[in-house]
Amino acid sequence: MNILITNDDGILAPGIHALANAVKDFGMISVVAPETPQSASAHSITLNDPLMCTKVELPGNITGYSVRGRPADCVKLAMVEICPSQCPHRGKPDLVISGINAGANIGINVLYSGTVAAAIESAFFDIPAIAISLAIKDKVDFDYAGKIAKSVIKLIVDNNMTKPGYVLNVNIPPCEYSWPKGIKVVPQSTQSGKDHFEKREDPRGRTYYWLAGDENQTSEDSRTDISCVNDGYLTITPLMFDLTAHGNISELNGIVSKCSI
Amino acid sequence: MNILITNDDGILAPGIHALANAVKDFGMISVVAPETPQSASAHSITLNDPLMCTKVELPGNITGYSVRGRPADCVKLAMVEICPSQCPHRGKPDLVISGINAGANIGINVLYSGTVAAAIESAFFDIPAIAISLAIKDKVDFDYAGKIAKSVIKLIVDNNMTKPGYVLNVNIPPCEYSWPKGIKVVPQSTQSGKDHFEKREDPRGRTYYWLAGDENQTSEDSRTDISCVNDGYLTITPLMFDLTAHGNISELNGIVSKCSI
Repeated sequence: MNILITNDDGILAPGIHALANAVKDFGMISVVAPETPQSASAHSITLNDPLMCTKVELPGNITGYSVRGRPADCVKLAMVEICPSQCPHRGKPDLVISGINAGANIGINVLYSGTVAAAIESAFFDIPAIAISLAIKDKVDFDYAGKIAKSVIKLIVDNNMTKPGYVLNVNIPPCEYSWPKGIKVVPQSTQSGKDHFEKREDPRGRTYYWLAGDENQTSEDSRTDISCVNDGYLTITPLMFDLTAHGNISELNGIVSKCSI
Repeated sequence: MNILITNDDGILAPGIHALANAVKDFGMISVVAPETPQSASAHSITLNDPLMCTKVELPGNITGYSVRGRPADCVKLAMVEICPSQCPHRGKPDLVISGINAGANIGINVLYSGTVAAAIESAFFDIPAIAISLAIKDKVDFDYAGKIAKSVIKLIVDNNMTKPGYVLNVNIPPCEYSWPKGIKVVPQSTQSGKDHFEKREDPRGRTYYWLAGDENQTSEDSRTDISCVNDGYLTITPLMFDLTAHGNISELNGIVSKCSI
């Protein structure tokens, strides 16, 4: 199996090294990841600048490509240019894994996540993809996260749980749990967070704002990703990239059919 | 009605001025938009930098706020800080309209779009939202687009077609049509495009890549946004922000219930 690994915390992040080490026995792996951290970059891509791309050697004798771009740029470039002609396995990957992100990607934060966007970009290419993130309470321990990632990715692969065109969004509960209580397959919470900005003045007296917000999301709905991760479960949420609210189409068609512009 | 206007092409773009003028008779309007163009910024937000925000006067005696950030930052900042305390209407808007984008936001490009992301960010706040974009063939004519925008937004508002938590993604056919042939309420196409990169060398002999790609999307499925816009129809696609592939949950639960990690 040929596995492409990427992330949004950048190619130097400990999470991507933990992931590469966790899956290196599963097949031939290549790493194509952003040169610098790209948290909250969502599905942005680079149109108006060139993408510099540098081959690098990563710990554990792994070949990597560092891209001066966004996570989705990395996957696009890997699929179109790097994997077919340069990376160790030559040809499109069988599986893309994005992570291990430092911080959960649950609830509406899924839409801000570069980690998840990289996996969705893979789905555009019909390649099965997994996004994997570690929820953080106080501690961050990528040895813990790597062991769990290895175990859950093996389970996913052995049971053919991935599908082309879809993403499995995996969230590991905080390290304070010595091991997840179990696995829950649950929907993304759609509950909004409470945003807040700090209002400050720069040295020239001009106002600026800085997003502060509550990073620890909570949800009252016990059947969603947020509650289950907070309760110590590893969650798997299948994601798609058709944003159409199909249930609203017929009502809107009914209105529009009687109108003209 | 209090209307917040934003975009991803920046506060100086002709599309946002066409939009502001198109809807200024519908209620009290405020403009909060990025300082610079933010095409393909998707739902990225700014965590690690401050957001500078400057009050500006726009053509037509309209009050605007220029934000050094992404489209979704603009909406978040507008909802939390600017609308409640500073903008002409004081308080949360009744409707957010994002656009008019120079270029269609149809098919999988919906996921790259900052225009659509700004509207989705509004949906996070339970405010009804419309994203509006102009498909481009050869010509760009925002007088044409503004007239159509005025007409379709009136139709949407008069018929209560918006819902809190949802977005209406409106795409105007190219200016080569003197007026849209009609309106179609259709799903987003999920067909992938054909990406391609130009491979070049910088003055120091280092390789870089530049996304070229095919900007004119086509689709074989006549019942989607891509085909209908290309055929000269104005399209309305209702969007949601729950990415869960609900149809896959029970099968995955069946597998996971027999396994442990």
